[in-house]
Amino acid sequence: MTVKDISLDKIVQAIEPVDEKWIEKAREKTAQLVMPARALGRLHDISERLCGIQKTLEPSIDRKAFLVMAGDHGVVEEGVSAYPQEVTGEMIKTFLNGSAGINILAGQVNADVFVVDMGIVTDLDPATLNGGDRLFIQKVAKGTANFSQGTAMTREEAEKSILTGFELASELFMKGVDILGTGDMGIGNTTPSAAIGAVITGNTVETMVGRGTGVDDEGLLRKQDAVRKGIQVNRPERGDGLDVLSKVGGFEIGGIAGCVLAGAYHKRPVVIDGFISTAGALIAYAICPAVVDYLFAGHCSEEPGHRIMLKYLGLEPILDLGMRLGEGTGGALAMGIMEGALKVFKEVLTFEEANVSGRH
Amino acid sequence: MTVKDISLDKIVQAIEPVDEKWIEKAREKTAQLVMPARALGRLHDISERLCGIQKTLEPSIDRKAFLVMAGDHGVVEEGVSAYPQEVTGEMIKTFLNGSAGINILAGQVNADVFVVDMGIVTDLDPATLNGGDRLFIQKVAKGTANFSQGTAMTREEAEKSILTGFELASELFMKGVDILGTGDMGIGNTTPSAAIGAVITGNTVETMVGRGTGVDDEGLLRKQDAVRKGIQVNRPERGDGLDVLSKVGGFEIGGIAGCVLAGAYHKRPVVIDGFISTAGALIAYAICPAVVDYLFAGHCSEEPGHRIMLKYLGLEPILDLGMRLGEGTGGALAMGIMEGALKVFKEVLTFEEANVSGRH
Repeated sequence: MTVKDISLDKIVQAIEPVDEKWIEKAREKTAQLVMPARALGRLHDISERLCGIQKTLEPSIDRKAFLVMAGDHGVVEEGVSAYPQEVTGEMIKTFLNGSAGINILAGQVNADVFVVDMGIVTDLDPATLNGGDRLFIQKVAKGTANFSQGTAMTREEAEKSILTGFELASELFMKGVDILGTGDMGIGNTTPSAAIGAVITGNTVETMVGRGTGVDDEGLLRKQDAVRKGIQVNRPERGDGLDVLSKVGGFEIGGIAGCVLAGAYHKRPVVIDGFISTAGALIAYAICPAVVDYLFAGHCSEEPGHRIMLKYLGLEPILDLGMRLGEGTGGALAMGIMEGALKVFKEVLTFEEANVSGRH
Repeated sequence: MTVKDISLDKIVQAIEPVDEKWIEKAREKTAQLVMPARALGRLHDISERLCGIQKTLEPSIDRKAFLVMAGDHGVVEEGVSAYPQEVTGEMIKTFLNGSAGINILAGQVNADVFVVDMGIVTDLDPATLNGGDRLFIQKVAKGTANFSQGTAMTREEAEKSILTGFELASELFMKGVDILGTGDMGIGNTTPSAAIGAVITGNTVETMVGRGTGVDDEGLLRKQDAVRKGIQVNRPERGDGLDVLSKVGGFEIGGIAGCVLAGAYHKRPVVIDGFISTAGALIAYAICPAVVDYLFAGHCSEEPGHRIMLKYLGLEPILDLGMRLGEGTGGALAMGIMEGALKVFKEVLTFEEANVSGRH
């Protein structure tokens, strides 16, 4: 099976909803575990959906990986971020060094971390960087254009960013990765994410725009203005994921959308992280709604619009710890919970095996 | 240091609040981590409190253990549980076999699981049981009396159950355990826990009584009646933890209260699990309010009164996954999150170390 040169249409055609028969079989097994009916609540839902995704009562999420998608954003010209743009490239070096938040939390669940330059401003040379073998240079362009003035990227670039994410994730799945986490890095990227959220969920700009890495009150107003102008100027088509991505999106957000499509295509679970990853999931969902069956929401971000996005997708976050870092950190922590859920499903004895009496 | 024959008064006198200076020092370190200010939300609060508890910027929770406290309850005569009383002893065997929910989830975080017969009806012989070296027989009595008719136990028995938990937990801490999780097993034990919750938090019986392992509507009314009668007949003194425990409690709940006191006494964190563990924490809190500084609430149970208890203690649960199994399962999952929090605190580079630019 090759995924090179596959078209978005072909990907969408190949995606099927999760198999409800396997979920039902899994529920029957859960009912026999030596505990009151469904006493571990959402852990059961998680393990059963993994059975449905992988069509087996012995699913595995042993081999884990993260793709941290990085991109820069022309809209930072509008003063929407508390940090300078060079931080995007600087943080990539920290990821490659293995000493940022995502490295530590992914390490805890034995997940590999790969970084993708989907279109940052800085030029990085993997050959000269410590850990450079974990960096893929897939620059669509050196940052998007300022979407408050016109389209962020062309429709072709939007498609390319999605297909790049799809290919990279597909390669990991074909090499045996069982579960993929999406991460993001990109100074300013809560701004396009808020725009995508507002357009696709149909909510107001005010509810979708938050403080991101920590802008002050004036910065918040500038962000709202930038998003409002971007939507007015570009008039993105809510039902056309490529159109929304090209007009108000980002390259890393397109890459994440590609990862989400790849999970559904290869029948493997994908754990999205916070606000930016979920914006990527919204793009993928607009292109192919069946992707949600394969998605797990790692956590609910402190960014206020995130809960609205998750609700729109019908996803309940696994964790809710006031986090707002991105990078994939919420997904990494959630993978530990998912692993626990699956171990319970596979390893706890049944009432009969344990020789324990049932209900009155 | 010996803890044999120590009195409850001496324990309470020795307990100090957590050192705010170390928490402040830890906050200063967090502020330097290469991420936006406090971007990992509650993970920072967790790691900083661990610094305060252990009075160091290098706290450890590597060595983990669970004490699963088991007891039986005379109040089951009132038809308050969906399961027969012999299940308490049967489940203990399953814990010793290593194949119940707590074993699997404790195993995921490399925590040892020990079981204590604090007063179950069945007689178990550790010498003849698979895994019997992990069972401590500390029967205060063969189950409590039916507290809807009179006191559940004598005041001396209440004190003995607390001191037993304190001694066992103290032994673990003195052997080098860094963090202790409390678990419970006891058919019917949501009923005394609800009674303790109603008395100590001052909330109504209706809000505190839930379905436990899954009683039907009539069972729920029987539970409410039993708790209401128990409070009317016994008139427990809200401010006197020993009085509340003796009148409407359980031996395993007293054992858990002892574990909670031991954490504060030895300056080690204790992770409480769900409804029953939190009832134990309420007893400990009534005896010595400073214990809360050393407590982490692993999760919020599906049992509706649990959230009220946690709020009363001022504890925010780490997880909220609709679980209601007990055994310590919520605490075990939460320990994974706490471990992640601490790894972030210790291992993520600072802005300076990572050579990443700060805010504008």
